[in-house]
Formats: sequence, C-alpha cells, structure tokens
Amino acid sequence: MSEYQPPIADIAFALEHVVGYPDIATLPGYEHADLDTVVELLEQCGEFMAEIVAPLNRQGDIQGSHLKPDGTVLTPDGFKDAYQQYVDAGWGSVPLPEEYGGGGFPRAVGLAIQEMFNSANLAFSLCPLLTQGAIDALLHYGDDKMKNRYLPKMVSGEWTGTMNLTEPQAGSDVGALTTKAVKNEDGSYAITGQKIFITYGDHDMAEQIVHLVLARTPGAPEGTRGISCFIVPKYLVNDDESLGERNNVETVSLEHKMGIHASPTCVLSYENATGYLIGEENKGMRIMFVMMNAARLGVGAQGLAVAERAYQQSLEYAQQRQQGLAIGATGATSAIIEFPDVRRMLMTQRASIAALRYLMLLDASYVDISTHDPDPAVRARADEIVGILTPICKSFGTDMGNELTSLALQIQGGMGFIEETGAAQHVRDVRIAAIYEGTNGIQAADLVGRKLGVRGGASILEFIATMREVETDLANAGADFDGIREELERQFSELERATHWMLKTGQGDPNSLLAGSTPYLRMWGLCTSAWLLARAAVAAAKTDDASLADNQLVLARFYAQQILPQSGSLLGAATAGATDLFALDAHSLSGAARKVRN
Amino acid sequence: MSEYQPPIADIAFALEHVVGYPDIATLPGYEHADLDTVVELLEQCGEFMAEIVAPLNRQGDIQGSHLKPDGTVLTPDGFKDAYQQYVDAGWGSVPLPEEYGGGGFPRAVGLAIQEMFNSANLAFSLCPLLTQGAIDALLHYGDDKMKNRYLPKMVSGEWTGTMNLTEPQAGSDVGALTTKAVKNEDGSYAITGQKIFITYGDHDMAEQIVHLVLARTPGAPEGTRGISCFIVPKYLVNDDESLGERNNVETVSLEHKMGIHASPTCVLSYENATGYLIGEENKGMRIMFVMMNAARLGVGAQGLAVAERAYQQSLEYAQQRQQGLAIGATGATSAIIEFPDVRRMLMTQRASIAALRYLMLLDASYVDISTHDPDPAVRARADEIVGILTPICKSFGTDMGNELTSLALQIQGGMGFIEETGAAQHVRDVRIAAIYEGTNGIQAADLVGRKLGVRGGASILEFIATMREVETDLANAGADFDGIREELERQFSELERATHWMLKTGQGDPNSLLAGSTPYLRMWGLCTSAWLLARAAVAAAKTDDASLADNQLVLARFYAQQILPQSGSLLGAATAGATDLFALDAHSLSGAARKVRN
Repeated sequence: MSEYQPPIADIAFALEHVVGYPDIATLPGYEHADLDTVVELLEQCGEFMAEIVAPLNRQGDIQGSHLKPDGTVLTPDGFKDAYQQYVDAGWGSVPLPEEYGGGGFPRAVGLAIQEMFNSANLAFSLCPLLTQGAIDALLHYGDDKMKNRYLPKMVSGEWTGTMNLTEPQAGSDVGALTTKAVKNEDGSYAITGQKIFITYGDHDMAEQIVHLVLARTPGAPEGTRGISCFIVPKYLVNDDESLGERNNVETVSLEHKMGIHASPTCVLSYENATGYLIGEENKGMRIMFVMMNAARLGVGAQGLAVAERAYQQSLEYAQQRQQGLAIGATGATSAIIEFPDVRRMLMTQRASIAALRYLMLLDASYVDISTHDPDPAVRARADEIVGILTPICKSFGTDMGNELTSLALQIQGGMGFIEETGAAQHVRDVRIAAIYEGTNGIQAADLVGRKLGVRGGASILEFIATMREVETDLANAGADFDGIREELERQFSELERATHWMLKTGQGDPNSLLAGSTPYLRMWGLCTSAWLLARAAVAAAKTDDASLADNQLVLARFYAQQILPQSGSLLGAATAGATDLFALDAHSLSGAARKVRN
Repeated sequence: MSEYQPPIADIAFALEHVVGYPDIATLPGYEHADLDTVVELLEQCGEFMAEIVAPLNRQGDIQGSHLKPDGTVLTPDGFKDAYQQYVDAGWGSVPLPEEYGGGGFPRAVGLAIQEMFNSANLAFSLCPLLTQGAIDALLHYGDDKMKNRYLPKMVSGEWTGTMNLTEPQAGSDVGALTTKAVKNEDGSYAITGQKIFITYGDHDMAEQIVHLVLARTPGAPEGTRGISCFIVPKYLVNDDESLGERNNVETVSLEHKMGIHASPTCVLSYENATGYLIGEENKGMRIMFVMMNAARLGVGAQGLAVAERAYQQSLEYAQQRQQGLAIGATGATSAIIEFPDVRRMLMTQRASIAALRYLMLLDASYVDISTHDPDPAVRARADEIVGILTPICKSFGTDMGNELTSLALQIQGGMGFIEETGAAQHVRDVRIAAIYEGTNGIQAADLVGRKLGVRGGASILEFIATMREVETDLANAGADFDGIREELERQFSELERATHWMLKTGQGDPNSLLAGSTPYLRMWGLCTSAWLLARAAVAAAKTDDASLADNQLVLARFYAQQILPQSGSLLGAATAGATDLFALDAHSLSGAARKVRN
C-alpha cells in the first residue's frame, strides 16, 4: 500500500514535450545533460527513492525525531543509513555547480529529483532542501574562502545546512528579529539569541551542520534594513579543514507537529556562538531571498509530490476495494474505481497533478534559461517569468497538495482515516507546505505587490499573451480541441480583466489589491494549469503515440471543462476591493456572546 | 487559546429570524418550548459545554482511549466524570420524548445543543450521538417491552448505544455483511461475527452499552433485503431490570486514527452473543436508515461545530498576533487581523459558518414540522424537504468543515501546525465527518438518485421556487440588497439548469447523473447558504438593531459576491456526463511507469 512508483514516464513526457527541455539541454553548460542522459539518471534516482527512501516514510512518522537527554537529536531508524547512501550516490549534488563537486545539471532536472524525493519521504527530504538553500546563499554571496571551506562538503551532502530566520515574535515579519551579532576582535561575530522552527536544526545524519543565521549588529537600522546573515557551524572548522570544538549552539526543544514527524523542528539557542558574516552587514535580507526563492519552488513541488504519492495509493485502493455493484456491471461486486464519483476524485487528482508537474518544471526551466541563456534579454525575460511563476507554484501547488491528498484519503473511506494505511500521513505532512517559506497569503501579496507591477504591468500581460498562443495551436489541432479552446479563451479573458483591474487599482489602493490577491493567484494557478495541459495535449497529438494523445486530450478537456471554470468564478472576489473585508469589527466578527436574554 | 464561547447570540438570531422557530414552538407538543425558554436553556447548556466539556478536548486528543489488558476500554482522564455530569444535567434528553423521560423539545433545539457539544469536544460528543441513533431506531421499530426496558435509561444517558453496521468487506455496501443471527429456542438470537469502526463500542463512562447490530439469519436473501437488526446489550438484563451476566461481545482492538483520538473506535467480536430482534426479520435496512438519517444531520452539524471552534481560535489569534505593519497603520506593529488576506480568511469562515448554522437549523426545523404539524400535507412536504436538505447538510457541512478548519489553521501559521495550539486537532478531528454515516459521495448519490426524482422532479423544483421567493424580499428591501439579488438570480437559474439536465438525463443514463452528483450537491450547498444569508439579512433589516442589520447585510453580500459564484462554475462538471471520467483505463490513470527508455 505504501509503495511508491516514480512517475518517470510522466516526467519524461513533461520534459520533452511540455516545458521544452530539449532546448534547455542546448544551453551553454548543459550540453552534457541531454534528454536521454537525464531520463536514465532519473530512472536510477527513482529506483533509489522507491527502494531506499520511500520505505522509511511510515516508520519515520510513527517514530519521529527525538531530543535525547544529552541534547542531541536522534532521527528515526534507518534515516542515518539512508542519508549516507544518498550522499554516496550523490543525488543531492546533481543540479549543483561542477566547480564544487556537483553534477552541473539544470534546475529542471533537480526539480524532477526533488519531486521524487518529496514523494518518497517528505520529512526526510527537508534536510537536503534546506542544505540547498544554504548552498545557494553561499554561492551568491559567500567569499572564496567560505565557498572553498563549506561548499564542497555541503554539495556532497557530508555537511548539511539550515536556515535560521524565525524567532517567536518574528515569523512572517522577519524584520522584527532580535538575535544579536557582536563583532569579535578576530573579525568573527558572537551570535546570541533564540531561533524557532529550525528544520533539521540538529540531527545525527551528518557530522557537521552549517547554520545560516539572520541577526542584528549593534546599532543596525530597525526592520529588514538592519539584518545581517552569518554562517554559524555546529563545529568550528580548523585551519586544516578538520572539525574543531563545538560551537555554542544548543537544541532547546523539538516541536510536536501535525505532520513531518521525522523532521526535527528545533528551537535553537545561540549563546555567544561564533559566526562569520556573509557579504556585508545589513545586507542579510537579499541573502535570505536567495535562500527562500529557491526553496519556494521546492516547496511548491512538495505539494505536487505528496499529492502524487497519495494519488498512487488511492488509485491502487480504488482498483482493489470491492464494494457494491456498479451500474451495468455483472458479477458479485465491483471495484470502487467503477463508480463515477470515485472516478471523479481520481481524475481530479490525475489531471491536477499532471498540471502541477508541468507548472513546476516550467518554472525550473525558466530558472535555467534565466541563468544560462547567452542572450541577456532572454535571461532577463526568463527571470521576470520566474518571478511570476514562483509564487503561483508555491501557493497553488501547496493548496492543491492539501486538497488532493484529502481527496486521496476520501477515496479510502474509513480506512483512509486509520493511520496504518498512510493516507492520513500524507494529509498531515503536506499541511505545512502552505505555511513555511512564506505563507501562501504572502506569496499572493508577492504576486500582486512585487510581480504585477514589473514594467508597469507589461511583464505579466505579456505572459498572458504567451499563454494565449495556445489558442491558435488548439484551433489548428482539430475539432476535438474546440471545447478546450473555447473555455481557455473565456478564462484567459477573465484573467486579463482581473489583471487590468489590479493594475488600475494598485496605484492608489494597495489594500484592495491585497484583498483580492489570494483569489487572483488561484485564478493564475487554474489558468496556467489548463494552459499547460492544453499544450501537452497539442504536443501529444503530434507524436506517433495514439494512446498518449488520447490520454492527454482527455486530461486537458476534463480540466478545461470541469475544473478551470472555477477561475472565472473568482473574478468577483479578486476585484471586490477591501471594503467588505473590513466592514465587521472584531466584536461583530465574533458571534459568541454567551448570553442574549438578560 | 482553547477556550470555547458558545455562540448563543448567533443561534438565537438564527432560530428567531431565519428558520422560523417561533412557528415551530406553536406546534402541538412543543408549546412548552417557546423561544425565551429555549434560549435560556441553551445559555445554560452552553455554559456546561464551555466549562465542563470543552476543557477536556485537548487532553482527550493527547491521551486517547485505550484498550486495557483486561479487555475493557479506558477513556481519557475526566471523561467519565464529565459524562456523569452530562447525564445528571439531562442535556442529552432535551429533544427526546417525554414519555421516556425526555424534555420533549424540538429537534431544532437538539441540533443547537449538538452544535455546542460538538464544538466543545467532538470525540466526547460521539457517544451521545450514537446513543441517540439507537434511541431513534427503538422508538420507531421496538416493541413496547423493548422500549420500556431500554429507552428510559438510554434517554437519561445512563446507558449508551452503538450502531454496528460495518464489517471489513462491508463498508458503504452494507448489504455485503456476513454476521450471523441464529434463532434460539427462547426467541432470542445467537449473534456471531466481527464488526469494525464501532464508535464507543466499549468504554467506562456508563454501566451498560446497548449495541444495535445488523446481521443475517440463516437462509436470508442476499444483499440488503436479508438484513435484520438486533439489540445486543453488553450485559443481559434480568427480569427485574437489573444487569445480569456479561454478553459474549468482546473488544478486539481500537483503531489508531488521524483524529477524534478520545473516541474509542472498536473492533467488536460477537460469539454467540444474545440478541433480540427489532421489528421483523429481513427488515433491518429501514431501521438502519432511521438511525443514519438522524445521525447524518448530526454529522453535518459536526462540520459546522468544529469550524466554529476553530474559527474562534483563529479570530483570537488574529487579534493578538503582532506582525509587520498594515497599510495606513501607525505604531510599531499591527495585529494580523489588519491585513486584508487574513480578513478574507476570517470573513470566509464567519459567513460560511453562519450559513451552515442556518442550514442545519432549517433542516432540523423541517424535521419538527414533518413530525408535529397537524396538517398531513404540510408534514409530507416537510418530509420531502428534509430528504433534500439532509444530504446537503451532511456533505456540504462536512466538506466545509474540512476547508474552514484548514483556513483557521492557516491564519495561525507555523503555530497552527504545532499540536500544542489545538488548531491541528480541529483539522484532524473533523476529517472523519466527510466519511462516516455514508461518505459524502454517497450523500450526493442519495440526492440525485433518491431525492431528485420525487414526484417526477416537482419536489426539488418547488424547493428552488421556495428559495427564489427571497428575490422578491431582496427587491423590496432596498438598493443595498440589489447586488445580492442579482447574483442570487443568476445562480438560482444555473441551479435550475443543472436540475433540469439531471432530471432529463436521469431517466436513461444513471451513470451520468452520478458523474455530476458531487458538483451538483455543492451547487446546492452554495445556493442554500447564500439564500439563507440573504434571508437573514432581510430579516435583520426589519429589526430595530442597526448593527445586526449591517452585519448580516455584509455577510450576505460578501458570500453572494465572493463565494457563491463558485456554484455556477460547477455547472460544467455537474452536466458533463460520465464519458471523460471513464476515458482513461487504470493503466492510463497511472503515470508511474518506472522506466521509459529501454
């Protein structure tokens, strides 16, 4: 029941036919990463995830990570060994720079690996995810000495990384943090403060943990303009690169969470810990954004990935579970997959997951173009598109992760609510993804606050125009595609209406912009999903695989006709403004007067 | 944080102004239950739920119920004592017949009590809910001796009841059950078989448990036509009504569930246990439906109730949590309630919960009319409406329960994902409600399969016409109500279109009917919600409470403009037919080929 089948065929189709991977593989630096090579690599990686990592998922949930009396953290049985195998195989380093021992593969390939890793074991995969965020920060802003000291072992996975942003009073408002950093005579800093929600803040899977810590130097400006970023290794590193004495960072406690039990979420206390400034003082926020932006796409992929794992389980259950007799069926009983409403739940998952995969891989592909295309104009445009797509991937991907895992549980009925079957774990695990790395509401604010106004709105409108090119492709593809085209035309027009309203309103009334941000982002999620499914259907029709063509056509049509219309229904909410949201005061929002008749 | 405030003001307003309770209180038999009396009773009951029951909710989740080595079930600390207080106060008996010691209050009052009970402690409240189902069955089909023996102590709560339907191979398909009942010489039956998912199948809160067990007599017809219903008491009852020897029913194990940990979900083994036939052999299904139908509305109320509790917590958090500075705000920080997207989440909860409360109380009120109106024609029509509303209450109420508790968690960010705050418990607890007492898919099948065709569709179309009377009320209420009226007109028309399609299709193509059943039911949930909010706004405008009128107008407008449009967007899914749902075979539904390049 808990087995995981890596969806290699789906990923390969997406790379080849939907997100234009063959073009990515021609970019300078990616020549070694042709599609055949990549698919073979993904097959091997999928094998590893299915055989080694996935079987630890359920036990990891039951056992959880624990803080031992000696202050160290014990991960669940099998995690340490599996992590060592992961390091030995080098899976974490595939998309990282060759200069530091990585494979130099495109981000799109890294994303496909992340998907399978997250499906196999979300709680386990968080350790490398955070490590990669720390690597990204060091690659961008570290000096050569730092890079040479830390990156090779972080790229290999021998050392892991963390991101230390949150404090009790400083969650979404990072600028409110109070951890102090006082410069020592040798140029290092003494870091003192308490950080919460630190994923894999301590564990027993690697010899060294490299904490990236946001803190404030004395006299630094208030808010986000006074934040600096430091490397604080768990063990100081000697000049000969061997590990030296233990740094002054302690694990105070682990959180008891709804899900991802195997991932130790630490409260860390820094008491004059030795830290090293990355970049310049007071420039920590931009480093944080480098870490966060890479992580945001990865978190979106978590929504996709856990949904895929849950879907596989629900599909298997639906084929095996015999219950009643379907209409027109003969025999004693039918598998519940023969009932239309169960089919609806399966098709909703199947089509939505395919769309999410296309969406995540497309965003990753634009990351690759934005970093590797020789033409600066192409790079700049790709970077704009990454800016638009990333909050959509994160928010819509994780919202759908919640909805789809819940559908998968629903198919399994009472058994789905019993922990032994694993369906509930997927629901519990994925719930955090809509919260961390910037809540989904903050993603929506990012979309309308930062991305919408790029080039006075031209950037986002051009992207809608790019999407609308599929209308011509659909018109040329034959009558079977007409229904899809008509619905897409209607919904793209509504998205344009919402966008124009946002652009007009945004100038003078930011609260109304924010009021509509979440429904507006969901419109984007639905429209990009339908767009990419349509693109996949058109592409599949051009292959010589009739079955593939049929399947992609059905998925695109089902989504366009039965799911996409939800997008236009959000226009009212997206463009209603803030008035009604603020019309009730806190007292009126609460209907909870205990007595009414005195 | 976990405190619960009974929403007495909201309930009182709903009873008085939205669901027509003053008329219910004039029905023969309900004369003692005038509104003032009822509100005072609800205030006292709310006090009990808030002070005695609600504080046990979190600890009950942590501790859970346990099967002891001696085979008995231990409930969490405090449950037994609180249950005794509940029995002493007589809260369970309020809506039950006076003949057996009940209060003889309307079902609408019982529903309001259930709401508060479910909010206070869902896992705890299941014990009386199941007892009430068993009482209903006995009231309808028990003989006088049975009624006199069992009902007084079940009505008082001294004895509790269970419903034993499910077996491993017989979940939604009750007809597949195999538990055997062989007649003894004394007229009793020997019951042998295993039942699963038996809520409070054993516990330590009452001296006696009255199991209602579905089983098959030798030679009974296959399927649902061969099912009989038996009373199987945990302890045999002596002729002097004292408890005698232990019956042969054993608790094999308890399930480990995603939520409602305090509720013992038992696997029960019957081994020649002594049972007593209720009614006639092979007539068990109609008894089951009596039990289930009462329970289905109660389960719908669980969705409402847990959402209310979660909402209260999220509202309090949103007022206290300081983070960043809202647009236009002064000072150092703002409470997050000042941010538009947080407001959207609060308003979505507030308006949806108000609508669900109206919906549940309305259904309960029609139950009262269907049983107590002197006019048989009025009773019959009310019964039809109960038939329509009950699957909507159950499915839409519990789907919204899932969605709204998740919104409440989201507002609390990372803290919401930490178990200590209790937000996660609400999400975990309410998840089962969409599954038990007939999955939400089965409710949708009931709506389109059994209720839609009543009087050739006239019944359901008349109910839409009844709803549409609000359009005139809105037109008469002034220009402030125009926007609500216009959207309602649009959406009622779409609901009528879907209904006509269903009626036309249903004759020859039941699979297509079932294919659209879930989106069609959701259209109903959204439309009835918007209708009742509009009705509430019109009614509030006629009171002399300007603040109430303003608030109800805002809620109705917010829902109509920002949530209701989702209804029409489901028309495509409701009327698409079954073809695309069945277009992919199981192989194509799975994209999980491990290798593609060999």
